[in-house]
Amino acid sequence: MKQQTFAFTRSENLKQKPDASTLQFGKVFTDHMFTMDYTAETGWHDPQIVPYAPLELDPAAMCFHYGQTVFEGLKAYVTKEGKVLLFRPDKNFERLNRSNDRLCIPRLDEEVALEALRQLISVEKDWIPTAEGTSLYIRPFIISTEPFLGVAASISYKFIIILSPVGAYYKEGINPVSIAVENDYVRAVKGGTGDAKTGGNYAASLKAQEVAAASGFSQVLWLDGVEKKYIEEVGSMNVFFKIDGEIVTPQLNGSILQGVTRDSVLQLLKHWGYPVTERRVSIAEVVQAQKEGKLEEAFGTGTAAVISPVGKLFYEGETYEINNGVTGEVAKRVYDTIVGIQKGELEDTFGWTIEVN
Amino acid sequence: MKQQTFAFTRSENLKQKPDASTLQFGKVFTDHMFTMDYTAETGWHDPQIVPYAPLELDPAAMCFHYGQTVFEGLKAYVTKEGKVLLFRPDKNFERLNRSNDRLCIPRLDEEVALEALRQLISVEKDWIPTAEGTSLYIRPFIISTEPFLGVAASISYKFIIILSPVGAYYKEGINPVSIAVENDYVRAVKGGTGDAKTGGNYAASLKAQEVAAASGFSQVLWLDGVEKKYIEEVGSMNVFFKIDGEIVTPQLNGSILQGVTRDSVLQLLKHWGYPVTERRVSIAEVVQAQKEGKLEEAFGTGTAAVISPVGKLFYEGETYEINNGVTGEVAKRVYDTIVGIQKGELEDTFGWTIEVN
Repeated sequence: MKQQTFAFTRSENLKQKPDASTLQFGKVFTDHMFTMDYTAETGWHDPQIVPYAPLELDPAAMCFHYGQTVFEGLKAYVTKEGKVLLFRPDKNFERLNRSNDRLCIPRLDEEVALEALRQLISVEKDWIPTAEGTSLYIRPFIISTEPFLGVAASISYKFIIILSPVGAYYKEGINPVSIAVENDYVRAVKGGTGDAKTGGNYAASLKAQEVAAASGFSQVLWLDGVEKKYIEEVGSMNVFFKIDGEIVTPQLNGSILQGVTRDSVLQLLKHWGYPVTERRVSIAEVVQAQKEGKLEEAFGTGTAAVISPVGKLFYEGETYEINNGVTGEVAKRVYDTIVGIQKGELEDTFGWTIEVN
Repeated sequence: MKQQTFAFTRSENLKQKPDASTLQFGKVFTDHMFTMDYTAETGWHDPQIVPYAPLELDPAAMCFHYGQTVFEGLKAYVTKEGKVLLFRPDKNFERLNRSNDRLCIPRLDEEVALEALRQLISVEKDWIPTAEGTSLYIRPFIISTEPFLGVAASISYKFIIILSPVGAYYKEGINPVSIAVENDYVRAVKGGTGDAKTGGNYAASLKAQEVAAASGFSQVLWLDGVEKKYIEEVGSMNVFFKIDGEIVTPQLNGSILQGVTRDSVLQLLKHWGYPVTERRVSIAEVVQAQKEGKLEEAFGTGTAAVISPVGKLFYEGETYEINNGVTGEVAKRVYDTIVGIQKGELEDTFGWTIEVN
């Protein structure tokens, strides 16, 4: 199956492509999508590229009731020479399978999934925008489809890849955002699903995000669910701090998502010789460092925004301005480097990009 | 709107009704469903009863990605006199709105929802099975439908009610089940979504359930996510213990679902004069009571099974047989009473049932 060309039904009504200057995040979709079905008897089968169209699902389909869904997010870029590049897609499909394990969803063949993505991108390559800050966002996802109201793993699933030409995820771009430490709501806890990319984690985050937004903050800084002391993530990103020269990020503990951008940032920083540590980071340590003038930078990392510097941090009634509210040197350097590699403008010394023919 | 008769499109292909003796749980659905849409501009609108049919949703619909869904479960019964009874449906729609609040989904008018249910049941009343142990299971649910890949609350939703004639939820019926205490996985934590009826909680539970089932246990006993000491729920039910004459159930703490059956059981037990306490119950206390011969009963409570006695409890390598593995007197009494009231065979002194015309 790995060498095969998947069945392809071309859309008869091609859409008009949007003006790159007006692109938002995740609102416009391309002409085609990849789909593949799973049944207990046949396993994963019927891979095909078909016109982007509504899914028809029984109202009792389990994904509507019991949240047994997983997803991924990655991006494709076109280089100045017209080459199409994917950034570490193997890591995304590896993680999708780890999410599958946690959610009791049958594993995909990662090579088949990657080949599916290549062929879909190849069909849709004219949809990849080239303007500054734009890219083609890729959303592979799996939903449970069995029409059954008992609480159990579904016996049928659908794997789908859709594509969306996007502008910057945050209107602020690489400009610093204001975040508030969340004391009431919890995103995930050890033993839960925090390290899987599944809908429930995001659903759980909406309320805190709404409360923070009402107070003028664009993101929430999540603390651990057990002691409410240790920093986990910021919004839907991993988070890094530069404290007195050391760059620290919360260690993977079962409730933190193992971000591909997080891993790329760690590799880059080590390569450049920065002292980098993955360890527990308490909010008390961060605030104390800020008070002593030792909190040099804070930034989030994720596929959608790549790097999102933190300019303001609200905690226990106080607002702290980090690095005078401007983007720090490290944040800028990792952003420029990762985006440069993604767009083929910098040498890919780590072998992170894959070219789509 | 409350007095209105909702638009009704009758199905032109009525299904054959299943043989009551072969009914399983939640696998067969009736001829019609109720649907109502929400958009930010119009609010909830277009309530209607339509033929049961697949939902058509954009592949980017947020419910497939970010888990912003809520649901309820309740049952309808036909009495010997042919009256159709609902059991405390007002409590379900109250809870649906509490779940909506937690998940950032716009509230429903509870009276409209109840009227929708009445009219749908009225259309489908011939689908209510009458054999022992059977009923018509009702599944109201809300899904987020906006086609958007940003993590935010959706701006559009669909509220749907589907109906399923069901047999007993557990093949064991009122017979005792074997359960295992879960030490690794966590269902929910304070600050999370454990007290909302949303998909993510159920998705998080599947893995532990799979592990327990592989060892021959039919359910998992969930401990709190913070200290892993205190009992929260059993499977997808609330749980009660009778220890040395006192009946205890874990107090509502933000991570435990506020069960309608739990509340009914509490009211009945108090009415009958049993000493009943809602408090923290540790697994250590339960095991100690068992060792001292003071653990008289354990049972789960939920809409699907009503009452599910626990016959065996596995914890830290030991299997404990509760009440010699047979259904206890209290479990039997609350089961018979609640089912008797639900079916109109016992006097409804609490005013729990509502008749559908």
